[in-house]
Amino acid sequence: MKPTEQEKFEEIEYEPQSVRQILTRMKDVAELIVDLAYSAVIFDDDEIAEEVRYLEAHMDTLNYKIRLSCMLAARSVDDAERLTGILQVAAAAEHMSNAAGDIVDLLDTVDTRPFLPRILSGGVEKIKLFRVPEDSHLAEATLAENEVETATGMRVIAIRRGERWSFGPDGDQRIETEDTLLLRGTDDGFEHFKRFSRTGETRDRHDDT
Amino acid sequence: MKPTEQEKFEEIEYEPQSVRQILTRMKDVAELIVDLAYSAVIFDDDEIAEEVRYLEAHMDTLNYKIRLSCMLAARSVDDAERLTGILQVAAAAEHMSNAAGDIVDLLDTVDTRPFLPRILSGGVEKIKLFRVPEDSHLAEATLAENEVETATGMRVIAIRRGERWSFGPDGDQRIETEDTLLLRGTDDGFEHFKRFSRTGETRDRHDDT
Repeated sequence: MKPTEQEKFEEIEYEPQSVRQILTRMKDVAELIVDLAYSAVIFDDDEIAEEVRYLEAHMDTLNYKIRLSCMLAARSVDDAERLTGILQVAAAAEHMSNAAGDIVDLLDTVDTRPFLPRILSGGVEKIKLFRVPEDSHLAEATLAENEVETATGMRVIAIRRGERWSFGPDGDQRIETEDTLLLRGTDDGFEHFKRFSRTGETRDRHDDT
Repeated sequence: MKPTEQEKFEEIEYEPQSVRQILTRMKDVAELIVDLAYSAVIFDDDEIAEEVRYLEAHMDTLNYKIRLSCMLAARSVDDAERLTGILQVAAAAEHMSNAAGDIVDLLDTVDTRPFLPRILSGGVEKIKLFRVPEDSHLAEATLAENEVETATGMRVIAIRRGERWSFGPDGDQRIETEDTLLLRGTDDGFEHFKRFSRTGETRDRHDDT
């Protein structure tokens, strides 16, 4: 965690790499953790809740690191004033992750069944589970090769293989038959997704160009 | 705001409509407001920031209303215990919106240029502005008819027409030439989107079925 000499004397105008990386990671975690928190409650899933708690703790660590980096980067009042902006975004990201943690605490403390999952699944965007069938078009290719999100509008939040979840998968993640995908998107998107998983077709062929 | 007799005596087991509607709305606002807050900073846009502040205040109102509805709905200890779950989700949604408000406060208080927008635009998902050109495939149809999100994976967060923004548009929203769209998605998705807006084609024709 100790900054290198190079980092320590880097000018803030040069966009210190570590601050940038940490803040970008915090933004990504803040987006993922909100999805996962709602998913944990909707599917009453302790493993997803566990990941939310892990990410919440991870976010605390990131916030600590970014404070450290910012303080080391600030060498004038002007620097410091501008760096408070970064710390404010970091604090906001941490508040979001704490709120996500509050949501999954529900799984331990209160009997919210049967109505909370049904209410939460009623938003504009839905969270869906999908099991990849035999001979699916999706299987044995990566998320990027399949272009799942651009082809169907459904975002893959997590993938379960056997007993293991992989959360916030990147484009290099392979999909295999029998995987269970946690998806976010509209009802329409899910219909497209199901068709796409069978055939690789994304939409009906009513070309209206 | 006064509850009707019917609402007042509704059993919690019947899923009181108003609590359901309020909580669903809070979840939708919590998702939208996070996107808008990052957008406001990335594009240094006071109008988007203004919408974030409006939604933040709206969220406070929703939280007040849902507390009221829950208290009126609880008629036993069991009811009350389960309803605390709803209030916990509502409080979490409000924390997220407060955090979003903290982010847009940056536009007023600190000079975060030039590096904060660049850092924030570096996440996995990007926020992009797109101006709908003449003779675009998108124009004169609704979002649902165009199936923008399912076809390209890009989510339309907001639409600007002339001087007016429309935030969190639904499927019935028409797109016209010269509209400016605020989009969220991956770089790949944005490439698909640009092609789609010209031709209505969503992907290259390398059919791998």
